Amino acid sequence: MHDLELHQHLIGQQGSRAALNTPVLVVDLDALDRNIAAMAAFAAERGIALRPHAKTHKSIEIARRQIAKGAVGSCCAKLGEAETLAGGGIESLLITSPVVSAPAIERLIRLNNHVGDLMVAADNPANVRALSVAAEAFGGRPLKVVVDIDPGFHRTGVATPDDALALARLIADSPSLSFAGVQCYCGSDQHIESYEARRETIVQRTAYLSGIIERLRAEGLPPPLVTGSGTGTHAIDAELGVFTEFQVGSYVFMDSQYGVCDLTGDGSQAFETALMVDARVVSASHAGMVTVDAGLKAFATEAGPPQILAGAADGSTYRFFGDEHGAVVAPKGGKAPGLGEVVTFAAPHCDPTVNLYETYHVVRGDTLVDIWPIQARGRSR
Amino acid sequence: MHDLELHQHLIGQQGSRAALNTPVLVVDLDALDRNIAAMAAFAAERGIALRPHAKTHKSIEIARRQIAKGAVGSCCAKLGEAETLAGGGIESLLITSPVVSAPAIERLIRLNNHVGDLMVAADNPANVRALSVAAEAFGGRPLKVVVDIDPGFHRTGVATPDDALALARLIADSPSLSFAGVQCYCGSDQHIESYEARRETIVQRTAYLSGIIERLRAEGLPPPLVTGSGTGTHAIDAELGVFTEFQVGSYVFMDSQYGVCDLTGDGSQAFETALMVDARVVSASHAGMVTVDAGLKAFATEAGPPQILAGAADGSTYRFFGDEHGAVVAPKGGKAPGLGEVVTFAAPHCDPTVNLYETYHVVRGDTLVDIWPIQARGRSR
Repeated sequence: MHDLELHQHLIGQQGSRAALNTPVLVVDLDALDRNIAAMAAFAAERGIALRPHAKTHKSIEIARRQIAKGAVGSCCAKLGEAETLAGGGIESLLITSPVVSAPAIERLIRLNNHVGDLMVAADNPANVRALSVAAEAFGGRPLKVVVDIDPGFHRTGVATPDDALALARLIADSPSLSFAGVQCYCGSDQHIESYEARRETIVQRTAYLSGIIERLRAEGLPPPLVTGSGTGTHAIDAELGVFTEFQVGSYVFMDSQYGVCDLTGDGSQAFETALMVDARVVSASHAGMVTVDAGLKAFATEAGPPQILAGAADGSTYRFFGDEHGAVVAPKGGKAPGLGEVVTFAAPHCDPTVNLYETYHVVRGDTLVDIWPIQARGRSR
Repeated sequence: MHDLELHQHLIGQQGSRAALNTPVLVVDLDALDRNIAAMAAFAAERGIALRPHAKTHKSIEIARRQIAKGAVGSCCAKLGEAETLAGGGIESLLITSPVVSAPAIERLIRLNNHVGDLMVAADNPANVRALSVAAEAFGGRPLKVVVDIDPGFHRTGVATPDDALALARLIADSPSLSFAGVQCYCGSDQHIESYEARRETIVQRTAYLSGIIERLRAEGLPPPLVTGSGTGTHAIDAELGVFTEFQVGSYVFMDSQYGVCDLTGDGSQAFETALMVDARVVSASHAGMVTVDAGLKAFATEAGPPQILAGAADGSTYRFFGDEHGAVVAPKGGKAPGLGEVVTFAAPHCDPTVNLYETYHVVRGDTLVDIWPIQARGRSR
C-alpha cells in the first residue's frame, strides 16, 4: 500500500491534511460516524435489520463500524468483495448479484464453508441447478439462496411472480441449498429527487413484491428474509413495512447524487457529506481559470462534474480536463485559487469514485487521523 | 496481487481465456507487439525519438517492450507514475505535468538523484523557483526542466511566447536546474476524426510552436528537446518535422476513441485493437436483452458505452446498468447471448479503463499466456 507509506508520518499531526500529496480521497470521520449512527438508530427504532451495502465503501474498517452499531453484516455486489470482507473477519454476508460461471461458483461454495453466514441472490433456474450441483459435490453445509425479484428494471431478478415461486420451490427442494428469502432492489428509483414522486413509484413496486410474498406464504414457502431498499427509499420502505432488512449503502458518505434528493419528505437532511476529494492547483496561467491535478482518474464521471466544497470562490465550477486534470473556473469577476492551493470537492457518485483509490485519508477537520485501505477496490469478479 | 493468484494456474493452458473469472482486462499480445513495432519503425524511419506515454498502459512490462524496440524512455503524467516505473528499472523519464506542492517537489528531487535520467515539465515562474530552491537545498545533479507550451487548450503550459522565453531563461539561469527543451501537447486535437481537419489545426498550432523555438534560438536558448505529439497527430507531426521526440501513448492499444479517427490520411489503419474487456452474462430473464457483469467499474464512462467485439449477435449494443452491470441488447429479432456466456468489448477510452484493473490478462487467441500487474494504476499523485 503505497499510500500508507507515503502519508503514515502525517497521522495525528495538527493541520496535516494540507500536507497530503494530491489528489486524495478524504473521509470526514465524525460525519461518517454520525451517518452510521443515524441509520442504525432509524432501523433499530423500526425493528428493521440493517445489512449495509459494502459496494459503496469497499472497506473492512467501515463494515466493522457499521456492525459495531448494530448492523447484522454486509451486502456485497460481487463475490470478490465478499471474499475480501470475509478475509477481514466480516462474518455475515449477502452477495446481491447472481454468481454464474463455473470458476466463480467453485469459489462461492468454498467461501460458504469458510465464513460464518453466507447468502447469494439468484434469478435463474439453470443457475440454481448449477449452485445445487456444486454445493452437493463440494459437501459442507447448505448454501443459502435468496430469490432476486426484478421490480421492473430488468437488470437482475426473476421476471414474473410465477418465476419467483418456481425458483423458490427449486431452491427449497434442493438438499444442498436453503431458501433464505427474497431480494428486491429498486435501483434508479433511489434517485428520484422528489420524495412524493419517489414514494408513489415505490408504493407500486412494493405492492408487486407483497403479492409475491403472499403467494410464497400460501405455497408454504414464507421468505425468512425480505431484503432490499436503499438510501433513497429507506424512509418510504420503513413506512410501507415490507422489508425485514435494509441494504442501504450510500448514506455513509452521501454523495452529490443523493445530496439533491429529499430523503425524509420534510426537506431535512438525515445524512451529511462525509466523502471528499482534495486536489491542488498545478497550473495557473490564465485569469479566472486554473488547472487542478484531479481528472477522469480522480472522480466517477458518469454523474456529471464534482461540486466544489471549499478552496475556490463561491460559484466556481469544475470541468473535466483529461485523465489527470480538471479546470476550476471562477465566476465572472471572481478570483481563481492560486498555484499550489488545495480545492476540496464532493464525490459526484461515491461507489465508482471510491473504486479509483487505494486508501481513505481519514480526517477530523484539517488533521489526518488515520489511513484506511480500500481492500475491496476493484474486486469486481 | 489478487489476480495473479486467482488465474496463475491457467497460464499456458489451451483455451484458458474462457475459464477466467470476469470482468477481466485482456491484452492481445501479438496485436500489442505489432503496434509497438509499427510505431517504432515509423519513428525510426523519420529520425524521431520515441518516448511513449506510460499514462496509457501504466505497466513496467509494456514500457520495457517499447524500450526494447528503440524507445528512449517513457513519459509519465504524474510523479507517482514516474516513481513506479523507476522502481521497475525504466531509466529515462519525462513527467509531462507540473509538480507543484512542497511534498511532491521533495519526492521529485529525490527521484532525480535516483533514476538514470529525469525531466519535468513546468509552466510557472513560481514553480520553477521552488524547483530551483529545492534542487539546490537537496544537492545532487541539476534537475532537467522542459518548458510546457500551451497550444491553446489552457490546460497546462505557458500562455504566451514571452512567457516561454522568460521561463526558459529562468531555468537556464538557475545553477540547480537545466533547460532541457520545450513540450507542446495538442490534447483534444488528437481526436479530430477527419485527417484533413486535424492536419489544418495542427499546422496552425505548429506554426505557433515554431515561432517560439525560433525566438529561443535567437536568444541563445535553443531547446535540446522538442517533445509532444500523440497517436492522433503523429503522422502529421512527422510530416511537419518540428518535434524531435514523440509522446504517443494510445497506439499500443488503439481504443474506440482512436478507432474512429483516420490516423494515416489514406483510411488505412496503422494500429490494431489490442485491449479488450471480457464479461459474462449473469442474468437472462428477458428476450433480446441480458445483463453482463461489467458496468461503471469495468469501463471508462466518459467516452460513451463500449463496443461489442465478440460474443453477441451483430448489431448488439451495450448500455451501462450501474456499478457492476451492463445490458447487452440484441438487435430487433436477434438473439441475446445465453446465461454464463462471455461477451468481449473494446475499451472505450484506454487510459481510464486500464486504471480500473489490477492486471492485464495477456492472451494469444483464446489462451492466457501471461498476467502483467498494472503497477502504476492509481498513481495519480
